Amino acid sequence: MSTALERGRALTRKLNPDLETVLSERYDDLLPDFAESLIEWAYGRHYARPGLDLKTRQLCTIAALTVLGGQTGPQLKVNIEHTLAAGAGREEIIEAIWQMAVYGGLPAAINGLNAAREVFSALDMAA
Amino acid sequence: MSTALERGRALTRKLNPDLETVLSERYDDLLPDFAESLIEWAYGRHYARPGLDLKTRQLCTIAALTVLGGQTGPQLKVNIEHTLAAGAGREEIIEAIWQMAVYGGLPAAINGLNAAREVFSALDMAA
Amino acid sequence: MSTALERGRALTRKLNPDLETVLSERYDDLLPDFAESLIEWAYGRHYARPGLDLKTRQLCTIAALTVLGGQTGPQLKVNIEHTLAAGAGREEIIEAIWQMAVYGGLPAAINGLNAAREVFSALDMAA
Amino acid sequence: MSTALERGRALTRKLNPDLETVLSERYDDLLPDFAESLIEWAYGRHYARPGLDLKTRQLCTIAALTVLGGQTGPQLKVNIEHTLAAGAGREEIIEAIWQMAVYGGLPAAINGLNAAREVFSALDMAA
Amino acid sequence: MSTALERGRALTRKLNPDLETVLSERYDDLLPDFAESLIEWAYGRHYARPGLDLKTRQLCTIAALTVLGGQTGPQLKVNIEHTLAAGAGREEIIEAIWQMAVYGGLPAAINGLNAAREVFSALDMAA
Amino acid sequence: MSTALERGRALTRKLNPDLETVLSERYDDLLPDFAESLIEWAYGRHYARPGLDLKTRQLCTIAALTVLGGQTGPQLKVNIEHTLAAGAGREEIIEAIWQMAVYGGLPAAINGLNAAREVFSALDMAA
Repeated sequence: MSTALERGRALTRKLNPDLETVLSERYDDLLPDFAESLIEWAYGRHYARPGLDLKTRQLCTIAALTVLGGQTGPQLKVNIEHTLAAGAGREEIIEAIWQMAVYGGLPAAINGLNAAREVFSALDMAA
Repeated sequence: MSTALERGRALTRKLNPDLETVLSERYDDLLPDFAESLIEWAYGRHYARPGLDLKTRQLCTIAALTVLGGQTGPQLKVNIEHTLAAGAGREEIIEAIWQMAVYGGLPAAINGLNAAREVFSALDMAA
Repeated sequence: MSTALERGRALTRKLNPDLETVLSERYDDLLPDFAESLIEWAYGRHYARPGLDLKTRQLCTIAALTVLGGQTGPQLKVNIEHTLAAGAGREEIIEAIWQMAVYGGLPAAINGLNAAREVFSALDMAA
Repeated sequence: MSTALERGRALTRKLNPDLETVLSERYDDLLPDFAESLIEWAYGRHYARPGLDLKTRQLCTIAALTVLGGQTGPQLKVNIEHTLAAGAGREEIIEAIWQMAVYGGLPAAINGLNAAREVFSALDMAA
Repeated sequence: MSTALERGRALTRKLNPDLETVLSERYDDLLPDFAESLIEWAYGRHYARPGLDLKTRQLCTIAALTVLGGQTGPQLKVNIEHTLAAGAGREEIIEAIWQMAVYGGLPAAINGLNAAREVFSALDMAA
Repeated sequence: MSTALERGRALTRKLNPDLETVLSERYDDLLPDFAESLIEWAYGRHYARPGLDLKTRQLCTIAALTVLGGQTGPQLKVNIEHTLAAGAGREEIIEAIWQMAVYGGLPAAINGLNAAREVFSALDMAA
């Protein structure tokens, strides 16, 4: 097992303990190493790096997924949950999304706000 | 003068004191209220908001401009300077850019790294 | 209240009288000044400007939202309604969308046509 | 009838015999020459060209629609069917999609995998 | 020769008489029917259609190329010239570009303004 | 060293023997594991996979980089060279690019053709 994969697994155990299992169940029939490969690359090779704290990394992800909006709706929702798990407050998430109106246009920002509201509502219902 | 414009001007005076003048000289012949309108919207209505600190806002902008890369090269460079002015270190900026390989693909991240290198080199030369 | 906000409110009263209330009810709990800020920027600082008539402005918006399609479906539908309110005919809207096949590719244009059909059908049903 | 239109019709008769009729029924009320124009351009002027075999052309389309993901979901599904009809296997399609994680980012690739799974499941159910 | 090709040629003779020759000289060694195919599709199948006047069609193109900005710089400049040839004034072009800040973000709009300035300056120098 | 990294290195030794050294010299001062990480992910985890031949993988990459055009110019050129090294002919590359006019619009396809011409000219000059 590569060091990057180990680092990625250690991080996702904290952020979202079920992530590798969920990905594995969903995609490993199509691509046998999908979950392992994603954890290694995204978490081991990026999120687990030193040099920028995890909470800020997650808020950067929120910003990027907002401006890319068209094809990142499901990933934006998952990452809003990860960003809360990394210690950000709801207001910080909303602010990171709304600021994107400047760079990605109003539709991108509004769709991001809608995604955040759905995540927050689901969390409130589950609480 | 609107409150948003006032807030925007107060913020850009700290971040980049020449910004409104530069924008005004460059675009106000085409659009007489361009500089004022940009300062009001981007800085007064977004960056100056409470709820998320300026340094994190700037790193979110770096992330977004990296994934949008194709049409945001010049703005990425200006915002790398603003992000340094907001207190981020070079390593934090590089990390925010490189993480975008996960969401915007490798070309976007590589072009972002090239933009950062150019800004850092120019600053080192000017130092 | 800024002049831009006043101009924006005057314009949306004609184009879509409920717009600010709808936006306010939907987003002001997340961002207290959302509706005001959007009306000021989009309508006061852009649509209300002289130099290009409102109908052409709206058709330009239709074209842009069509090529950006991925994340602008809901906004395209709202703007098709605004474009009709600004005096454009259905055929003009369809033509503006279909021409975008040249610049944004066939999928963008086809999705735009689907959005227009949905708006027109809803209007016919409501008639 | 132009040569390009003839060539396009000859090709779609093999790839998807109902295509022109379906497009015509769906869009010709909005744009009377829609189906003819699409067949002429996409199939007569592109897919029917010599110089690259049809199966590879279709896999290139899968790759492009995956990275453009946000607004190309329905077209990706239709083209996955066309790519199977052009002789590609399911594994080749999955590989072409997954490779796009490198260029379009993980969300684009994951959404492409989801689209492929839906097409394959529908085909298995219909079998 | 198809009717669409004829219509396209008739239109480009008015809008930009050298267009087919320039395209042919530049690309027909790579793709022998490139110029013919582009004139047929873009001008014969789109710009020459009834239902929307040419000047508005061109302004819609300006809007779309502005929001797509990253890969459409050269085409934006050519189309600014075509839009002037179709009877639009410079102010109308600037307004169509600047309005795109709302939908495509500030960087897209600013890069569009820069493209317009370059075209206008070149025309003034040539005058 | 991970198996994916080994596989990636074995593949790039054939496709572009200098690639890791070039990437390392260019980016490892900014990100010490940049070259290793890119080789592992892009080549070890994607291009080196079974299930789709290398030449088709490369043509899929050409297609994707063409439609993403705005921020992928430099990568498109490198990958045109890799596609030739994987056994594709120039005509196949041109066809894969031109077909993208259907999905990514004419500007994307034209910019892709320009990139291909530059690569071919440079190779002819060096020959």
